[in-house]
Amino acid sequence: MNLILTLRILGALLLFLGGSLFAPIPFSIYYHDGVWQAFFYSALICFVVGGILYRYCKSPTELTVREGFAVVTFGWTVFAIFGALPYLFSGAIASPLDAIFETMSGFTTTGSTILTEIETLPQSLLFWRSLTHWLGGMGIIVLSLAILPMLGVGGMQLFKAEVPGPTADRLKPRIQDTAKMLWGVYFLLTMVETLLLMLGGMTFFDALCHSFATLATGGFSTKNASIAAYDSSYIDGVITLFMILAGINFALHFQLLRGRFRDFFRSEELRVYLGIIFLATAVIMICNWSGGIYSHFFENLRYSIFQVSSIITTTGFATADYEYWMVLPQYILLLLMFVGGCAGSTGGGMKVARILLLFKHAQVQVFRLIHPRAIRLVKLGNRPVDKEVLQSILGFFALFIGIFVIGSLLMAASGMDVVSASAAVVACLANIGPGLGTVGPVDNFAHVPAFGKSVLIVCMLMGRLEVFTVLVLFFPSFWRK
Amino acid sequence: MNLILTLRILGALLLFLGGSLFAPIPFSIYYHDGVWQAFFYSALICFVVGGILYRYCKSPTELTVREGFAVVTFGWTVFAIFGALPYLFSGAIASPLDAIFETMSGFTTTGSTILTEIETLPQSLLFWRSLTHWLGGMGIIVLSLAILPMLGVGGMQLFKAEVPGPTADRLKPRIQDTAKMLWGVYFLLTMVETLLLMLGGMTFFDALCHSFATLATGGFSTKNASIAAYDSSYIDGVITLFMILAGINFALHFQLLRGRFRDFFRSEELRVYLGIIFLATAVIMICNWSGGIYSHFFENLRYSIFQVSSIITTTGFATADYEYWMVLPQYILLLLMFVGGCAGSTGGGMKVARILLLFKHAQVQVFRLIHPRAIRLVKLGNRPVDKEVLQSILGFFALFIGIFVIGSLLMAASGMDVVSASAAVVACLANIGPGLGTVGPVDNFAHVPAFGKSVLIVCMLMGRLEVFTVLVLFFPSFWRK
Repeated sequence: MNLILTLRILGALLLFLGGSLFAPIPFSIYYHDGVWQAFFYSALICFVVGGILYRYCKSPTELTVREGFAVVTFGWTVFAIFGALPYLFSGAIASPLDAIFETMSGFTTTGSTILTEIETLPQSLLFWRSLTHWLGGMGIIVLSLAILPMLGVGGMQLFKAEVPGPTADRLKPRIQDTAKMLWGVYFLLTMVETLLLMLGGMTFFDALCHSFATLATGGFSTKNASIAAYDSSYIDGVITLFMILAGINFALHFQLLRGRFRDFFRSEELRVYLGIIFLATAVIMICNWSGGIYSHFFENLRYSIFQVSSIITTTGFATADYEYWMVLPQYILLLLMFVGGCAGSTGGGMKVARILLLFKHAQVQVFRLIHPRAIRLVKLGNRPVDKEVLQSILGFFALFIGIFVIGSLLMAASGMDVVSASAAVVACLANIGPGLGTVGPVDNFAHVPAFGKSVLIVCMLMGRLEVFTVLVLFFPSFWRK
Repeated sequence: MNLILTLRILGALLLFLGGSLFAPIPFSIYYHDGVWQAFFYSALICFVVGGILYRYCKSPTELTVREGFAVVTFGWTVFAIFGALPYLFSGAIASPLDAIFETMSGFTTTGSTILTEIETLPQSLLFWRSLTHWLGGMGIIVLSLAILPMLGVGGMQLFKAEVPGPTADRLKPRIQDTAKMLWGVYFLLTMVETLLLMLGGMTFFDALCHSFATLATGGFSTKNASIAAYDSSYIDGVITLFMILAGINFALHFQLLRGRFRDFFRSEELRVYLGIIFLATAVIMICNWSGGIYSHFFENLRYSIFQVSSIITTTGFATADYEYWMVLPQYILLLLMFVGGCAGSTGGGMKVARILLLFKHAQVQVFRLIHPRAIRLVKLGNRPVDKEVLQSILGFFALFIGIFVIGSLLMAASGMDVVSASAAVVACLANIGPGLGTVGPVDNFAHVPAFGKSVLIVCMLMGRLEVFTVLVLFFPSFWRK
């Protein structure tokens, strides 16, 4: 592992973060919230530290796979630490651990919050909170479609974005080309949603913040009551649509924009994803109807599909307190937390494609008992899936469940009840935001003890970086030359 | 699939069941409980139906793998149905569904009960209840060490009992030889435990019934309060020891009896199994000590190790209501439910070896990210595990979790709360007995609605037959010639 080169790239990332920290300042001045200095000094610190690292850490070698892992894991960690400075400098969040929790939750597009009172926060800090989502989402798109496939992580090779035209073999130019192409789509969708939300009566500020949180499948809102504060079926509808879009592979969106409709709908993962949303919504609607929770069909549809989309895409916006729903809908939502969005989207969780392949693998195993000599390959779409990729996915599944179990044990050790402990871990590991029990959709994470918050911070990072990327750093041989 | 041959073997199994139904009659006469006719008529029905099937279903062909699957799945089902007759004929259980639940719970060595009052049952029925466990345990030992390895189910090939001496290639003689050898061990352990329990003051009747339930890792007791009724640290100790023994591969016990101590302790699965028991007991003891639940070290040890052994071996005996313990111990017990005993034991769950291999596989996948060209095989003990076997185990894991999820959804649909619904399913799927919540260690399954009971009956069967064996019957190609 070339530490010097890693530090240099981290320095560059810090310079970028410093630049981003200027973005909330205009809002601070416009709204006279009096905290612009917090951003200015935070940016300054980023520039100084980033500048020193970038200037003095020089290495003649090229970036290899190992530095890739280190940059990704440390990059997110560094962002969570330095991005927390404005909360601390402005005094909005007193505890450094809480501030790091909130920032890690932002950059990992999780959306879990330790704030009990959101609307009293200065406007510019609310903007920064949403911006951490949006920047995190940008990172995730490139990570999942350009970086992780090259690193060979967890079967992400399957979802490599195909860059048109000739590409070099070295990491750098390919990542840059892919990034530009996908960020274009991300930027466009954000703009369209902002406009549509403004048409529904939101202020530009709120529309922008909520678009950031939607496209990144983050879930931070500028309102205490989340989306329920607007009580508008139009706004619920727009956000539902954009949550579902954000849960789709961004490489597919790119195909769609190029007019390749057939390629878009041919994706087996997409069809399964939409099928799950449809089925879960239908079952939950039947339960809500039979339980007499919503009297009107459209009211039922509005709240049910919003919650299903919010959970499966791991956004975490709330329009209804689903803890008052029946047991089955709650259970379905709990399962959707594990599923997550499509690979290559900003959504978290285990990803639809992985779960699909897992059960296809299991089906082939049963089939082989009857036909021991038959050769049946696991396919995704019409293409057979490479055995190595499949094994990596099976390994991912074991690790995800393993970390969920260890995390839940640690949370239970801190005294939380079984449901809240498990739900808190899955809410953070799958980057959703709210869970069940004491961390449900109308609650927050403020009451979680410091030890528990630390566990959840690690869970957010592990989940967002597809587990493997972080675990690899724990192998001693990773650090050896 | 040769249906005629399958029916003939089911006929033979019914004749065996008919014979077994005579066993409780001496107890009925000795205790004057007045229900001996219930057994007599049940036996008669088994003889008539079994006789007809055995006499008139003749097929010249040899047993193949397909009939193997059918015989195992239908065999357990037929036993659960015909074995329920004495409960119905005696009037002890009024509902046929309840009687089948109780019998399936017996033959699958689960130990979940729908009885709210056990001690009022006639003695001979109590004996039959325990005998279903013991017979089920006999079936499981042969199934897991002789039949499933040949059928290639879920990686059980790894744990094939090695029959000394030359063996034929056909299924029948090998199964018979293996069965005799292992049943000898099973019988011996049952006798020793019965004697030891009698030395602790149990009546012969109670000692025999509890030995049946221990060696089969079943969990049915003749007392309402389960083992807590005796309130004896000696009895707790004996049962703890024999539960742990019953959770060990019976082929290893056979090695031990032949004086091969080194082979016994060389087993990696055994060492991990004992390690888990030690670690879980230690953590739970610390929690119970810090929570002030038990004041004395030996009292703490006695209750903690009993409960850990009871759950990991999937026996389900109770000496303490662990729902009054802290959250972490409860969570650990919930996890141990999934783990289960060693492969080739009478214990249920996913089996220690499978979970061990799953995490070894995941570890290799992380390792390969750093060393893409290195070849590192997954090993158990010192032997590399065949790739096919490993894939089958990974498939098993997916199916087990999948069935757990579907079962929990169905139970939640019947109105149970999330914890009780999940715990009920895992308690039946892993063949443990009691769960948490409304089906906890001092509760029973009487209140579960009929639909839920049916789901749980299927879970018990699926779990006991390693999932694959049952699922294979759902493939249309299984039934084609």
